[in-house]
Amino acid sequence: MTTARAYAATSPTEPLVATTIERREVGPHDVLIDIAFAGVCHSDIHTVRGEWGPIAYPQVVGHEIVGVVSAVGSEVSRHALGDRVGVGCMVNSCRECVNCKAGMENYCINGNTGTYASSDLDGTITQGGYATNIVVNEDFVLRVPESIPYESAAPLLCAGITTYSPLAHWKAGPGTKVAVVGMGGLGHMAVKIAHAMGAEVTVLSQTLSKQEDGLRFGAEHYYATKDASTFELLKNSFDLIINTVSAPVNLDAYVSLLRLNGTMVNVGAPPEALPISVFALMGNRRSFAASGIGSIAETQEMLDFCAEHNIAPETELIEAAQINEAYERVLASDVRYRFVIDTATI
Amino acid sequence: MTTARAYAATSPTEPLVATTIERREVGPHDVLIDIAFAGVCHSDIHTVRGEWGPIAYPQVVGHEIVGVVSAVGSEVSRHALGDRVGVGCMVNSCRECVNCKAGMENYCINGNTGTYASSDLDGTITQGGYATNIVVNEDFVLRVPESIPYESAAPLLCAGITTYSPLAHWKAGPGTKVAVVGMGGLGHMAVKIAHAMGAEVTVLSQTLSKQEDGLRFGAEHYYATKDASTFELLKNSFDLIINTVSAPVNLDAYVSLLRLNGTMVNVGAPPEALPISVFALMGNRRSFAASGIGSIAETQEMLDFCAEHNIAPETELIEAAQINEAYERVLASDVRYRFVIDTATI
Repeated sequence: MTTARAYAATSPTEPLVATTIERREVGPHDVLIDIAFAGVCHSDIHTVRGEWGPIAYPQVVGHEIVGVVSAVGSEVSRHALGDRVGVGCMVNSCRECVNCKAGMENYCINGNTGTYASSDLDGTITQGGYATNIVVNEDFVLRVPESIPYESAAPLLCAGITTYSPLAHWKAGPGTKVAVVGMGGLGHMAVKIAHAMGAEVTVLSQTLSKQEDGLRFGAEHYYATKDASTFELLKNSFDLIINTVSAPVNLDAYVSLLRLNGTMVNVGAPPEALPISVFALMGNRRSFAASGIGSIAETQEMLDFCAEHNIAPETELIEAAQINEAYERVLASDVRYRFVIDTATI
Repeated sequence: MTTARAYAATSPTEPLVATTIERREVGPHDVLIDIAFAGVCHSDIHTVRGEWGPIAYPQVVGHEIVGVVSAVGSEVSRHALGDRVGVGCMVNSCRECVNCKAGMENYCINGNTGTYASSDLDGTITQGGYATNIVVNEDFVLRVPESIPYESAAPLLCAGITTYSPLAHWKAGPGTKVAVVGMGGLGHMAVKIAHAMGAEVTVLSQTLSKQEDGLRFGAEHYYATKDASTFELLKNSFDLIINTVSAPVNLDAYVSLLRLNGTMVNVGAPPEALPISVFALMGNRRSFAASGIGSIAETQEMLDFCAEHNIAPETELIEAAQINEAYERVLASDVRYRFVIDTATI
């Protein structure tokens, strides 16, 4: 067993506190990673506060992890000591279902093993990346190109792949018009990636407060959704809308912005069902879809794409003692655009 | 002007009655069609009863029309005297919007001109096919292959194209699993067409009462949706679900039947918005879409496809005097599977 210093939630309502956890032995196919940086994702907050269902405490969250390989199991072939690597939202999957066999572990029919708050193969509950190390099966460990700045690479493992995957699947590229709804951690990555893919990018944000940033990240247009005329002006405009907002939105208003054969894809999921009008979809043969992170192969592809295009998240580095304050700032949308924990401070 | 005998609605609540209407002069690009048969579509009933909004009376409905060309305008090049032709749900479109220019008149941004109850270019309200003749711009007139039985060809112009279009667009074919929800006028055509395209077809109907028909039309499997175990059994099964039911259904239950990258397409549109859970879509990266009839080019393609594969609707021929009784039977789902009016009896 390996000991890790970590920050854990002990109840749905109390602040996260410093603690010590045990990691499993490094098995034949495992990699021990000394974590350097861990991103703060809104999902972490939903989870520790029990908003996505009850969990067991204490719980360490964090699924945007980068670090260095410090030990490898006897059978490991994909990673070596000293490699800069990353771990995202999942650390295993059933490997037997039709989706796993197709290399789409993120859609594992039996449910993949989440990086935290998930039942691991040995029956324990997985503990995430707000910690000094982690043990992960080599197949779920990514190579992080050295050209991506170390301090800001972590958010690619969730915010990056979550937006890259639908942009790639629905073929954002030259000649396509893409709208990104929301300019937070996911939204700002969607803008950078869609722009690098060659699409014409429009940001739809509640206000124009982040307009300058959006244009700098690669958007060509920026509209405030608080302004009702936006929805009139942009009717029948987009091939693809990536909705990064987890709160309920007026789906009919957004899908009406799609042109022929356009698709709106949610990458956030509000817990409540949303009303949608079939008539709104029938005009222009529109689709409404949802996408969940990406496969391991696609995550590697995204990291290599970001390295090639010099894409990195915009981050604010914090110390572990600032995590609880950071949570409040995430909830207040007061972050540009992702907090990253320097795990040396844990 | 040409006179036509017709059956018209005179109010939302009274039975349709025999009447006489005027058709416009045959213009340079128009075709006069002596109507032989007209199908009875559920949309006809919704329209005359004002269920899709108020209309002007008297109103002749019917948008599944076959007949013979009996006069052509001076500039007509696509059709000749004596040709067997058809008219479907639209008789014109703006011809200038991006969708019309792409040959997708059914998604005309400015709204195409419906075959009935629609504002025509000359400001009159279009009158449909429960009549002895009709005048239509040649570009919206289809060739009906002689090999399709004359008495049963009419429903192809709405029920046929409405199901063919999404099956073709979402690539039903060998290796794909298609579910058809509802075994009415549209559903039975969806089964025949999807089977002819090479897909493995499953019918999802409320009960098993039409199972024998479904299997005869080409389905390999048939399940009752009243049986809750159906939804458990078929989870993650289909690439494509064509929902022909206009009444509200439990979308989450149906989309959960889709496998990776599967799409559920509504071809009927309930007036009320339907709740949908983003979580249900996120598993397997599912999509929910809607499709409206098909373009003129695609309608011709469908007619030729049906001729080639010996596909025809199952019809019950009625006389004009039986229209009101037929409406009641449509509402009671007591028709296998489409009423066709012999317009010689009008």
